[in-house]
Amino acid sequence: MTTTTSPSVDLGWHMGAPSLAIDPDALSPERMRARFSGMRETSPTVNVWRGAGPVSALPRALRNDIDALTFVPLGAQTPMRCDASLAANHTDGIVVLHRGQVVYESFDGPLKPHKPHVCMSVTKSLVGTLAAAEMVAGRIDPDALVPVYVPELTDSAWGNATVRQVMDMTTALQYDEDYANPAAEVWAYLRVAAQLPGMPAPAGSPIGIRAFLQTLRANGTHGERYAYKTVNTEVLGWILCNVTGLPLEQLIEERLWTPMGAVQDAYFVVDPRGQAGAGGAFSGALRDMARFGETMRCRGFFNGRQIVPEAAVADVERGADPAHFAQAGYTLLPGWSYRNQWWMTHNAHGAYCARGIHGQNIYVDPKAEMVIARFASHPKAASANTDPTTLPAYHALAQHLISAS
Amino acid sequence: MTTTTSPSVDLGWHMGAPSLAIDPDALSPERMRARFSGMRETSPTVNVWRGAGPVSALPRALRNDIDALTFVPLGAQTPMRCDASLAANHTDGIVVLHRGQVVYESFDGPLKPHKPHVCMSVTKSLVGTLAAAEMVAGRIDPDALVPVYVPELTDSAWGNATVRQVMDMTTALQYDEDYANPAAEVWAYLRVAAQLPGMPAPAGSPIGIRAFLQTLRANGTHGERYAYKTVNTEVLGWILCNVTGLPLEQLIEERLWTPMGAVQDAYFVVDPRGQAGAGGAFSGALRDMARFGETMRCRGFFNGRQIVPEAAVADVERGADPAHFAQAGYTLLPGWSYRNQWWMTHNAHGAYCARGIHGQNIYVDPKAEMVIARFASHPKAASANTDPTTLPAYHALAQHLISAS
Repeated sequence: MTTTTSPSVDLGWHMGAPSLAIDPDALSPERMRARFSGMRETSPTVNVWRGAGPVSALPRALRNDIDALTFVPLGAQTPMRCDASLAANHTDGIVVLHRGQVVYESFDGPLKPHKPHVCMSVTKSLVGTLAAAEMVAGRIDPDALVPVYVPELTDSAWGNATVRQVMDMTTALQYDEDYANPAAEVWAYLRVAAQLPGMPAPAGSPIGIRAFLQTLRANGTHGERYAYKTVNTEVLGWILCNVTGLPLEQLIEERLWTPMGAVQDAYFVVDPRGQAGAGGAFSGALRDMARFGETMRCRGFFNGRQIVPEAAVADVERGADPAHFAQAGYTLLPGWSYRNQWWMTHNAHGAYCARGIHGQNIYVDPKAEMVIARFASHPKAASANTDPTTLPAYHALAQHLISAS
Repeated sequence: MTTTTSPSVDLGWHMGAPSLAIDPDALSPERMRARFSGMRETSPTVNVWRGAGPVSALPRALRNDIDALTFVPLGAQTPMRCDASLAANHTDGIVVLHRGQVVYESFDGPLKPHKPHVCMSVTKSLVGTLAAAEMVAGRIDPDALVPVYVPELTDSAWGNATVRQVMDMTTALQYDEDYANPAAEVWAYLRVAAQLPGMPAPAGSPIGIRAFLQTLRANGTHGERYAYKTVNTEVLGWILCNVTGLPLEQLIEERLWTPMGAVQDAYFVVDPRGQAGAGGAFSGALRDMARFGETMRCRGFFNGRQIVPEAAVADVERGADPAHFAQAGYTLLPGWSYRNQWWMTHNAHGAYCARGIHGQNIYVDPKAEMVIARFASHPKAASANTDPTTLPAYHALAQHLISAS
């Protein structure tokens, strides 16, 4: 980063063409919001085809009792209405499924039902699910060391890390993911990944994500604590591609979007090598994210077929060690864990979620038979900015759906 | 251009990411071929939605007598079979409609039915058709001067040009479109239009297509001779956007792709301002290009509705002055003219076509009730490389369909 001012750090994701140099207004919240519904307008992308089959049904049974539902935001005293929370946390669109039916839906601003929106780190949960499927099929051994699948990483931080440690982000990396730190390595990653369109990697940088991964080094002992670092997902994606012999976009297309009967093509932003960014570069339509969440809730079965192996979903639901997670210091997420690239609440409903910065979510509540897919464009990156007005709202809604059923 | 070697000139369209600097193989014909079926993988793009309606029918009535049909290539003595011509002119895909039915279809290499392929200057005919529709609706006066619609062009070459002169490319511009000349202004255009991904415009260049247009100057008197210059289409696109208040991608979406019942989303490569390139930046699926050709053949009526006003198609079919066209010296195209961004053969069948470099075509033969849509990746840009094995083949096929009916 060339600047340390807060807005440019928070809005770094959408810097680019038209860049600040030619458009001083490019970092406004309004422009960022438009950008999130059109990442391909500033970056090279690779398409994820929905397939030639029919769009799967998402029956509608809209309820009028959700807008007025209230919850108490984390750290607050005063209840907030659900409809008021949408503006408060910069929601671009939200779909709530109950028992597979759309009970609530809202689109706002530039987001339309047919427009893919950036998923940020929700991408990781797609990749983790596919990797879990390969694990239960026996094609990836979670206890194997990473170089078994990616020899190029032998001398890197991952040379002595297991796939399981990568999956659950318990590797010890010399790598800072704090967006508020302009010197954090995450900025170098985003630049080599070509995810900051106006800011190419400096001359002499590794070319592309995979070359960059090879330069990273360990800092400590793997497997002792959870530490959320996006580069782990890039390693996982590399493993997945090598094991299957397919690029990531084709895996998502053939194994998820086409069998799910997605309504719309999706896409990945690609790096200068044409590599899809596994850590956060996916854009999809909101209702398709809901379809994916519903697939998970139904233990892999959706659109009349078993899309994800049930054992892979069970391996997600199992969760990981909350003691590892606790060391990361997420005070808003007590007792949670991180498993197969999913965030596990370990609450009484067994809820878990996919989470992306600026407010992207898929929230699966098995007990309430509820799935929420949500896109947002909160001006600040960290999820801590949206958690207070989303997590308790999701849980209140889940409880309401249970009691109203 | 920084090099004068023939391959880089001929293959200039696909220079880019991964650029030559990191991938010496990026200019190989194989890679170019792949690139043409995935322009968005190296450039920012804006989507053209197909809409939420059903895909329109393209009934199939495949014939087995077309492969063996022969024709004599222009300038040759020996007949060639139609099937042999496909490889000879680097065809990626071809669809032939007769009376609205698919009588022949072939896909080869990376092109698939659902994959948009770059249309190059076939794009111009889409724009010209929409502009003709605005003319017959009375919203664009062909005799008005360009600055009536685009005041920013008052001091440019187009300050005293009429819209009709822009439509039919009879403006006199100080601007060379010869790809074989490394100093030609067309290379500056392609760079400011961000259509050479590895070669951004040099520092100090105008930013984006519209700024570049304002720098161009006249060279002679408008209206006296035909001279094919892509920048005219960019001016036409600008006029169209100002008159309708809509960006080009939305015009194509709402007025053509959605009512046509296209099977697949299409897209434009955009410049650093996010502006769709009207001169050659469109990519669409082959069968959708055939649908558009069929719409023209049926005088604007397709998919159960009048998509293009019949009077606009008639205004295309009217053609322009072959005497103007003759001065451009296209020895392979005797007696042709250029009208509303379409190439008019003035042959006995009243055939006309959309043409793009490297071999892109939509060929409409009203008398034979035939439409051909074709994508190719001939290693050399100029259409003179593909005309000898396409134009006589198309006409032979038309005659065959008439006599076999």
